Amino acid sequence: MVSLLVRAARGLPVSHTPVWFMRQAGRSLPEYRRVREGVPMLQACRTPELVAEITLQPVRRHDVDAAVFFSDIVVPLAAAGIDVDIVPGTGPVVASPVRTRADVDALPDLDPAVIDDIAEAVRLTVAELGDKALVGFAGAPFTLASYLVEGGPSRNHEHTKAMMYGDPVTWNALCAKLARISTTFLRVQIEAGASAIQLFDSWVGALSRPDYERHVQQHSAAVLSGVADLEVPRIHFGVGTGELLASMGAAGADVVGVDYRISLEEANARLGGQYALQGNLDPALLFAPWEPLEAKVREILAAGAHAPGHIFNLGHGVLPSTDPDMLTRVTALVHELSAG
Amino acid sequence: MVSLLVRAARGLPVSHTPVWFMRQAGRSLPEYRRVREGVPMLQACRTPELVAEITLQPVRRHDVDAAVFFSDIVVPLAAAGIDVDIVPGTGPVVASPVRTRADVDALPDLDPAVIDDIAEAVRLTVAELGDKALVGFAGAPFTLASYLVEGGPSRNHEHTKAMMYGDPVTWNALCAKLARISTTFLRVQIEAGASAIQLFDSWVGALSRPDYERHVQQHSAAVLSGVADLEVPRIHFGVGTGELLASMGAAGADVVGVDYRISLEEANARLGGQYALQGNLDPALLFAPWEPLEAKVREILAAGAHAPGHIFNLGHGVLPSTDPDMLTRVTALVHELSAG
Repeated sequence: MVSLLVRAARGLPVSHTPVWFMRQAGRSLPEYRRVREGVPMLQACRTPELVAEITLQPVRRHDVDAAVFFSDIVVPLAAAGIDVDIVPGTGPVVASPVRTRADVDALPDLDPAVIDDIAEAVRLTVAELGDKALVGFAGAPFTLASYLVEGGPSRNHEHTKAMMYGDPVTWNALCAKLARISTTFLRVQIEAGASAIQLFDSWVGALSRPDYERHVQQHSAAVLSGVADLEVPRIHFGVGTGELLASMGAAGADVVGVDYRISLEEANARLGGQYALQGNLDPALLFAPWEPLEAKVREILAAGAHAPGHIFNLGHGVLPSTDPDMLTRVTALVHELSAG
Repeated sequence: MVSLLVRAARGLPVSHTPVWFMRQAGRSLPEYRRVREGVPMLQACRTPELVAEITLQPVRRHDVDAAVFFSDIVVPLAAAGIDVDIVPGTGPVVASPVRTRADVDALPDLDPAVIDDIAEAVRLTVAELGDKALVGFAGAPFTLASYLVEGGPSRNHEHTKAMMYGDPVTWNALCAKLARISTTFLRVQIEAGASAIQLFDSWVGALSRPDYERHVQQHSAAVLSGVADLEVPRIHFGVGTGELLASMGAAGADVVGVDYRISLEEANARLGGQYALQGNLDPALLFAPWEPLEAKVREILAAGAHAPGHIFNLGHGVLPSTDPDMLTRVTALVHELSAG
């Protein structure tokens, strides 16, 4: 039984437009905050029953058409043995930032055998999902590299860019290694039952298109081609990437995720009408009254109809203080408006 | 004697491309950190001798072609009587966020008589600048509104957008008031001797173009037209505004500031070749070795030559940990390469 999400990703007819929300599993849900109480983030991400529960919570609550595997972008790095922790209120913090060729050479690879718990979490989740899709999750090389080189979250990525422009040999060695880690992390999820994957390049909107093509595209392409033989749809997304969409699609995506800053109609034009699209409600709109929110959902569905396929989503992750009832209402509205 | 910056802004021939750097006055300079020791930000911004000294420091050190008036985006709000403070490490914090029509109606106007110190600081600065330009400084209504509505700096602007989409009458009343405050702040600077102004809409890249045109453009236009009779060049800039450039130009700018994500050649094409451009070196490149940095400066000068005029600048503000010597070297390089 092929899920609606996979059908939309392949450009096949669907009974309604499938919906899920980036970061739907997480802090916006009281049931999430309850099960996470006292459990550090990295520990939560390595406990199969807890990962399955958290991954399933938004599916039960909102009736969305897909789950997204609950994890964090640094989970595969930590699993490989890199000293990284997730500090509440800050995000990932890397004990020794990676700045030199020796630092890069010292980075471990990820042995799939050490993430049996990830496979188990996927199996537990899929067993409960029925005909809904599970979207596997991994970070793309540029974004992972930024965490490692800066030593944590960064607004300006100055050390990352200094390496990228100043020492491209080291940069490429780093990204090649991260591409292998992400590929392994995704393959484990797909082989355990994930029916699609999303490669998140959260921060890549900080690059110009020529720089993306010169320094980043090949490494994202290595991840996307590295799972091609497993034949699940590959979604690729980054924030603020309106200028990069065509290059991100060409990296080997089946579905291109679109940020809320440009319309899906415009995104489809930039992509030459060749890709299914995912997006793109501004998560801030979930704080507005229902009337303008409903109007925007209608607008997005109409714009998405220009593309070969459309998966409804946000144009960025759910904000922690979002009223979850708004997500439930939006899901129902998309289902109702698109049922045909 | 018309400064190089004003000549470039007007599309007149220049002996070399004028250079300045957004946030050139401030934390990257040890001499700034010395004079600011023990002086809170808002107090520093209201002490004429100190403002003049800080404004002049980067001109002396780097030999840039323009000073930018040292201030903060919330200075005119605080001067008007709004309870806002600048908290080190956080940024502006507003005591009572503005969320309702009553909140908006209670906001004071800015009486130019209460900012005599700003006029005095401008006069002191201009007296030392010789034939270099002083760029006056103010925040644009959207960005100011975001600080007031959110209560401080925000990544996602959710309450701001909730008001913008959900209660456009209150939104427009708020922005109209902020436009008057910014206009007053700029007029005082120009009348005291500023030879150009820059209207900073730092966060407006968080909007799509249709939303910018519907909810924001008219208010920025009110500020820009509100100083038109004073006949100084008006520069308009926001981060991540590649999609908005044409609409920001049409708001009444003479010079459009361009972020580093698109080339000046592409920006010029989007603007129909009608505006002088300012930009657009990625401030993160100042952390890279000299060779790729020099190559990028050459590329920017070549791209800027497509526009009717070019003022060399960064595509975002100087980062606090920047080595100031890099700014001095870039200034000299631009002067050398563009001298004709």
